[in-house]
Amino acid sequence: MSPDHLSTTFAALADPTRRAILARLAAGEASVTELGAPFNMSLPAISKHLKVLERARLIERGREAQWRPCRLAAAPLRDVDDWLRHYRRFWEENFDRLGDYLKDLQAKEKRHGRKKRK
Amino acid sequence: MSPDHLSTTFAALADPTRRAILARLAAGEASVTELGAPFNMSLPAISKHLKVLERARLIERGREAQWRPCRLAAAPLRDVDDWLRHYRRFWEENFDRLGDYLKDLQAKEKRHGRKKRK
Repeated sequence: MSPDHLSTTFAALADPTRRAILARLAAGEASVTELGAPFNMSLPAISKHLKVLERARLIERGREAQWRPCRLAAAPLRDVDDWLRHYRRFWEENFDRLGDYLKDLQAKEKRHGRKKRK
Repeated sequence: MSPDHLSTTFAALADPTRRAILARLAAGEASVTELGAPFNMSLPAISKHLKVLERARLIERGREAQWRPCRLAAAPLRDVDDWLRHYRRFWEENFDRLGDYLKDLQAKEKRHGRKKRK
């Protein structure tokens, strides 16, 4: 089975350093050196992570020869969001059930309070 | 760096068969045999995928010795959703920009139509 886009995206996201790079790029474009600074990592190690992110189209890199700034490319994340949409009802339902439970609890508390005051 | 929960989740999702298993389980719990049927895969191969999903807490399995039904456990997907929230503005902004562009286009069309009628 050839790797599909969604699998490539998920594989690229399955690393805390790569997610930290994306978090940094969410604040604005940055050079490889700037990206590497907070991780105390060699430039080749950072470059390897950037290549994985670039292959997954999660980042784009400028064409300038000296300073090739990286920027976030969010299209694959939007695809993850679309995929996730089908499952959202599972935790939203759970949340609704918790809401119902809390409402019941409040109603009981109220009834209990009223009885006490009588 | 020890693998964190989010990395384990993303790694488990980086496979089309495992995502298809989750999609099937979104419709209700199923046995290993039922899950294996549509993939034309050996039971050991399916079991291996289920183990990855179970380790990532994306599925839970019943305790019955003979028939251990699998069911979806959505908590890790909710965590992915939380993570994704920080990036949502990127495609929503793009969408807003497209919306603005279309509004401009409509306004221009209207003005153009009015001029023609004069």
